[in-house]
Amino acid sequence: MEIKTLTWKEKELVLVDQTKLPVDVEYVACKTLEDVFVAIRDMIVRGAPAIGVSAAYGVAIAAYEITTTEFDLYKTELLSQCDYLNTARPTAVNLSWAVEEMKAVINGYEGQSVAELKALLEKRAIEIHEEDIMINKTIGKNLLSLVKEDNTILTHCNAGALATSEYGTALSVFYVAQEEGVTLHAYADETRPRQQGAKLTAFELYNAGVDVTLITDNMAAEVMKEGKIDAVIVGCDRIASNGDTANKIGTMSVAILAKHFNIPVYIAAPTPTIDMAIESGKDIPIEERDGEEITIINGEYVTAKGVKTYNPSFDVTPAELITAIVTEKGIVRAPFKEGLQAIFK
Amino acid sequence: MEIKTLTWKEKELVLVDQTKLPVDVEYVACKTLEDVFVAIRDMIVRGAPAIGVSAAYGVAIAAYEITTTEFDLYKTELLSQCDYLNTARPTAVNLSWAVEEMKAVINGYEGQSVAELKALLEKRAIEIHEEDIMINKTIGKNLLSLVKEDNTILTHCNAGALATSEYGTALSVFYVAQEEGVTLHAYADETRPRQQGAKLTAFELYNAGVDVTLITDNMAAEVMKEGKIDAVIVGCDRIASNGDTANKIGTMSVAILAKHFNIPVYIAAPTPTIDMAIESGKDIPIEERDGEEITIINGEYVTAKGVKTYNPSFDVTPAELITAIVTEKGIVRAPFKEGLQAIFK
Repeated sequence: MEIKTLTWKEKELVLVDQTKLPVDVEYVACKTLEDVFVAIRDMIVRGAPAIGVSAAYGVAIAAYEITTTEFDLYKTELLSQCDYLNTARPTAVNLSWAVEEMKAVINGYEGQSVAELKALLEKRAIEIHEEDIMINKTIGKNLLSLVKEDNTILTHCNAGALATSEYGTALSVFYVAQEEGVTLHAYADETRPRQQGAKLTAFELYNAGVDVTLITDNMAAEVMKEGKIDAVIVGCDRIASNGDTANKIGTMSVAILAKHFNIPVYIAAPTPTIDMAIESGKDIPIEERDGEEITIINGEYVTAKGVKTYNPSFDVTPAELITAIVTEKGIVRAPFKEGLQAIFK
Repeated sequence: MEIKTLTWKEKELVLVDQTKLPVDVEYVACKTLEDVFVAIRDMIVRGAPAIGVSAAYGVAIAAYEITTTEFDLYKTELLSQCDYLNTARPTAVNLSWAVEEMKAVINGYEGQSVAELKALLEKRAIEIHEEDIMINKTIGKNLLSLVKEDNTILTHCNAGALATSEYGTALSVFYVAQEEGVTLHAYADETRPRQQGAKLTAFELYNAGVDVTLITDNMAAEVMKEGKIDAVIVGCDRIASNGDTANKIGTMSVAILAKHFNIPVYIAAPTPTIDMAIESGKDIPIEERDGEEITIINGEYVTAKGVKTYNPSFDVTPAELITAIVTEKGIVRAPFKEGLQAIFK
């Protein structure tokens, strides 16, 4: 069973409902801007790249939805809809990036034809979608050049097809390997507290026919010690200009363990995730989330009510623990500052 | 609310039902040998030291239960009951150790009085119980000498009062500190897959009024990086003569992280846990448990049905990652082989 994160079909955006996975595989058809807004807000679609692409289609849907044919009125209404969509999840960088891309089409259009603008917006949304697929596929090819036939890769959290249009970032290596007839094996960390490794990564790789083994986070050291892991490949939420990498909590832990066992750590990073304006990981704030993500599982307390928790959602892996940052524009190794600057030239 | 793991009261063994924790605090009174057998088999009581003490009382209960007054018949029946009790959980070393201690009383008794033997057996069971408390309390005092007022200690799994008669091994430091007016703080790793850190450690420390913060296993590196942890203290299941230490899965991971952040790692170890017959950790087999411990939480699948798992229940922390092994007979530092030999002299 192939899961399609998002599909554009006859002016509708079809999303797999990620709040129902892995128990149920249900699809939601977004026919209005409000549908897209709700899908992003309620995490029916999640993962920064997938949110960005959905937002672009959201604007295209809004463009078809607005009925007035008076151009200035149409443009004003559409721009206001864009701003509304941008508030669905204020923390997702790709959401505002995609909305800005669509607004640039609207503001850059010099004609007066509502019909023509509608077509241009749909075209740009499809481009953004296709670009996302191409970026991920290229990252996958670059990652594949770093591993060998029959290698086993440990990954953490979900930087997979479910977080993007297709392929994923970290998981793209498995899908590109399938296409090229290369056999790879995966170990997926469960990734507490939200268990994206179990609920999404193991789920999507298993469904795609990739050989995947699920472990709890505290087993990563043991599988490394047993010689089962050839490389660690993870995604990222933000990379500072010195290579320090913010990603899901537990990533730094895996990187320290990998260093102890001399296993390479590769970060799969679409270039929009690299923030050259930030000097180091110290400038990246760590979001702390609700403690009930830790104390309650499937509706039941797993400890005494009242127990304190600490729930940092991300950590920052220092650049010195990273073997290479793998982007669609090439593979960057230490010294990262110079390497990252070079790919933006 | 104070939780009493086990209490001997008017010829009955009263156990807190650990299968109901932390949701319900219910006590079970064992009035027959069969009650004790079931309590051990069904994990109403768990933790090697607590199982040992329960087994000793189980034999004392059997001694009172058998009605015949004909001495030879009585002795034969009692020894057969001992052997039956020993099969309740074949892997728990302390179970057979305690049963052998009680059998030694039976076989060593030279008189012919059923009543006198009954009294001797109850006396020996109470001794084993009190010894366990004293061992743990002494370990707690030794651990306390290694930390300072206001220190924060990270622990993994449950080596607490719930695993012993009282005090616990690793957690004894917190209870002895309370008695001596020293303030300590605790961080408890959740300890997936069975969550003993959440269900037992955070629960028992919180109930005892110890300042405890619960984190998921993959957050240990982050709290260490933030400078929140002064020492790691964990229990153990078996220590080889070179200091290699088998304990709950994830312990080695914590030890590697602690080394990376220059944080000391202390193993709380009652001397019966030290196996001088074993040369190194390589000789300790790693038990692999059912994968459903990982894939099913509170009755619900957290990944696709059919996903492979790997579920090693223990890992072996190499001696070079251990700062000290803390026993009731003293604190042992590297070189461990010589240090451990010395305490057995």
